[in-house]
Amino acid sequence: MAKSEGSISKLCLVCSVIVNLFFGVNLYVGRRGLWGWKWSSDEANVRGLSWSGRAAAEAESAAAQECSGHGRAYLDGVVIDGRPACECNTCYGGPDCSLFLPSCSANADGGDPLFLEPFWKQHAESSAVVVAGWHRMSYSFSDQTTLSKELESLLRKLHSLVGNAITDGKYILFGAGSTQLLNAAAHALSPHNSSLPATAVASIPYYALYQKQIEFFDPADCSFQGDPARWNNTTNTTGDIIEFVTAPNNPDGQLNEAVLHGPNVKTIHDRAYYWPHFTGIPSPADEDLTIFTISKLTGHAGSRFGWALIRNEEVYQRMDRYLELNTMGVSRDTQLRALKLLKVIIGDGGREIFEFGYKTMTKRWARLRKTLSMSNRFSLQKVPPENCTYFQKVREPTPAYAWVKCEREEDKDCFEILNVAKILGRAGSIFHDDSRYVRLSLIRSDDDFDVLISRLKSLISGEDGAKIMRF
Amino acid sequence: MAKSEGSISKLCLVCSVIVNLFFGVNLYVGRRGLWGWKWSSDEANVRGLSWSGRAAAEAESAAAQECSGHGRAYLDGVVIDGRPACECNTCYGGPDCSLFLPSCSANADGGDPLFLEPFWKQHAESSAVVVAGWHRMSYSFSDQTTLSKELESLLRKLHSLVGNAITDGKYILFGAGSTQLLNAAAHALSPHNSSLPATAVASIPYYALYQKQIEFFDPADCSFQGDPARWNNTTNTTGDIIEFVTAPNNPDGQLNEAVLHGPNVKTIHDRAYYWPHFTGIPSPADEDLTIFTISKLTGHAGSRFGWALIRNEEVYQRMDRYLELNTMGVSRDTQLRALKLLKVIIGDGGREIFEFGYKTMTKRWARLRKTLSMSNRFSLQKVPPENCTYFQKVREPTPAYAWVKCEREEDKDCFEILNVAKILGRAGSIFHDDSRYVRLSLIRSDDDFDVLISRLKSLISGEDGAKIMRF
Repeated sequence: MAKSEGSISKLCLVCSVIVNLFFGVNLYVGRRGLWGWKWSSDEANVRGLSWSGRAAAEAESAAAQECSGHGRAYLDGVVIDGRPACECNTCYGGPDCSLFLPSCSANADGGDPLFLEPFWKQHAESSAVVVAGWHRMSYSFSDQTTLSKELESLLRKLHSLVGNAITDGKYILFGAGSTQLLNAAAHALSPHNSSLPATAVASIPYYALYQKQIEFFDPADCSFQGDPARWNNTTNTTGDIIEFVTAPNNPDGQLNEAVLHGPNVKTIHDRAYYWPHFTGIPSPADEDLTIFTISKLTGHAGSRFGWALIRNEEVYQRMDRYLELNTMGVSRDTQLRALKLLKVIIGDGGREIFEFGYKTMTKRWARLRKTLSMSNRFSLQKVPPENCTYFQKVREPTPAYAWVKCEREEDKDCFEILNVAKILGRAGSIFHDDSRYVRLSLIRSDDDFDVLISRLKSLISGEDGAKIMRF
Repeated sequence: MAKSEGSISKLCLVCSVIVNLFFGVNLYVGRRGLWGWKWSSDEANVRGLSWSGRAAAEAESAAAQECSGHGRAYLDGVVIDGRPACECNTCYGGPDCSLFLPSCSANADGGDPLFLEPFWKQHAESSAVVVAGWHRMSYSFSDQTTLSKELESLLRKLHSLVGNAITDGKYILFGAGSTQLLNAAAHALSPHNSSLPATAVASIPYYALYQKQIEFFDPADCSFQGDPARWNNTTNTTGDIIEFVTAPNNPDGQLNEAVLHGPNVKTIHDRAYYWPHFTGIPSPADEDLTIFTISKLTGHAGSRFGWALIRNEEVYQRMDRYLELNTMGVSRDTQLRALKLLKVIIGDGGREIFEFGYKTMTKRWARLRKTLSMSNRFSLQKVPPENCTYFQKVREPTPAYAWVKCEREEDKDCFEILNVAKILGRAGSIFHDDSRYVRLSLIRSDDDFDVLISRLKSLISGEDGAKIMRF
């Protein structure tokens, strides 16, 4: 019995040892599979992917830098200690951007649309894109054009969803931002080799680039003459007139309409800001030539991507020729990225991004109005409420820029008044308007906006006759 | 003894069972870690990464399509059955590109540099790049420019490694390919608002874009007059002359030098092909204005990235102003990608890519020469051997293009002769030269080159008096 018991014990032991060996080997082999968990975080991240894991781990490592919430590290930033360094928001410094620079000026100058950056951080997974080393090396797509048909069809879908433009019966061209398309359009609409150059006009205040481009690129074919009002009764002149119509307008947010009409008038509609972030969408634009840009839609100004809707075939072909000879189309890397971003937007009919944008702008306007309400020194533009077919309600516009007027008789140079108070705006004179006006950008980062409000409060609280001295 | 033996056995058994339990639990828990291997391939791929895994898996899924080795599927291709469809090389078709189209023409027309695509597939891991949804949304880098300083410093390093240009004391500007920079340069060097426009010239045969750009963009400031030879003795004219010097030349691969010199002569050096793939590098270029492009260096024509080295500050500033008003700089997405590609090249001092490129071009030239040696009907350009400081040897040039001449008296339209034989080249007349010449591109995909050789063989074997009738 003892012997048989001993035999059974031995048998069990042998079995158990075999099972042990099995588990042991299994675990050893398994460990190789599990190795990742013991690796450094970079190495760990590449598990399970073939060629893209390393790039993914690099991007996540750069993105993992917190920069104290006042900056960000980019994959292509200056490398310090083996990692891309933090790039801090205005008024923040130090290696991790934790240092507030108390004496710095609020930056409310450029139209950097970083107010949408938090949206993309929230949608990191769906908006990331991996570019393979051999991605689209060719000059052309398989249809021999330089335009992605997938991207074109997504743009048409987007306009249909948002209801801000009719794309049926329109050609679409891509450009390096609306910047390139504006000049391509002006060039296409100007007479060439004519003794009578075209006249270009835009209602004051207007975006300075229109005039700068015409004067730099097309001085022989087109002459910039400012306000269209003074051409109103002279549309029977023999020369062509090109009117830039910006709606909503940069700088003042008004939904401008064309002033001039007639057989010799051609209109370029700049609709960069015609999105629910900024304005009600009363009806879809249905114009001969309309220009949009991703900068003020998704916030990706750095990607340099815009598009034009063009009704007339000849104008389309002249613009196409311009874009071909100028840059041979838009970078395929940019087109790939735009495609990914638009897919995210379109995924839910635009609901999330436009609600995010509208909410952010509404809050900022409320803070700005409240701040300025403490003073009689500064006034803001008035933009009438609009029906918004997208949000299905009448809504107050929330323009990208505040168009501030210095009301005091002696405050003739409003830019300088603000500048002394450490607020960097853009002078009204740059928009060809009175220097009593200054444009303040409201679409920059949260930090920029916070510092702007703080500087405005200080300025106003220091006023003689400020309504309330404390905030 | 038996008892104690039994006790030991039991003790061993208990230990063994405990070890078994440990292994068992470990393996179970481990499985959860290993779960990925049981998932579908897409799900498996996202293991270990946070927000970038999905994009990585998408890219790998697109890249995994084999397309029979005669095409490729891109992430932004037309989607069929939930995956981007194969885009086939010329002469191949079908859903998986397995169908050879026997009646199709060989495409030897455009300069699509796909001969380098296999290099990037071999270096998939190091060349992939992940673009986060919030990557560089701003208009400018943190130094308020639109140029990546990291990329600029990599370009300087590259030229120093290759020995093909001196960058010390030069400004660098980026453009959307050399295309945009060529026009920016011509614009910067032309007098403005002068009654006497500049004259632009280029030695015949020349790249057609120079003339097209001048005539399209700058007709008032500059007039294209063709060959510089006829201006050689008239450099004392009062007007400015802009000479485009292309070295190696497109189409014929000659290391052209400036023909004109003098105080009123300004030279734009187009060095697109001045890389060891195509030519010996006798000495570093050290010119006032030199233009390079990534297209013929890495093969990424679709990315639209070029750069200019500029000695004179005023010229630099005028070009900078052009680029700013034209497109507000180059897409940051493109700059990120160019940075990654250049890192791969620079990693080993350029050794691998230039050896790959040189070897590929050498093999192609050998096959082309052998094929054409069977006939007296066609001749090839002769380019003298050059010392190559990069490879440290004297070497035969391997130009990007064959500049073919139809030698028979009656073959006046060489393009048409080849076209009838199903070979699509680019007519000599496009380069302002005799129509006895045709440019054949040798830098396209392996398939394109194979079909070209096959069509040339058929053409030559069908000749009266072909030296050998069979291949």
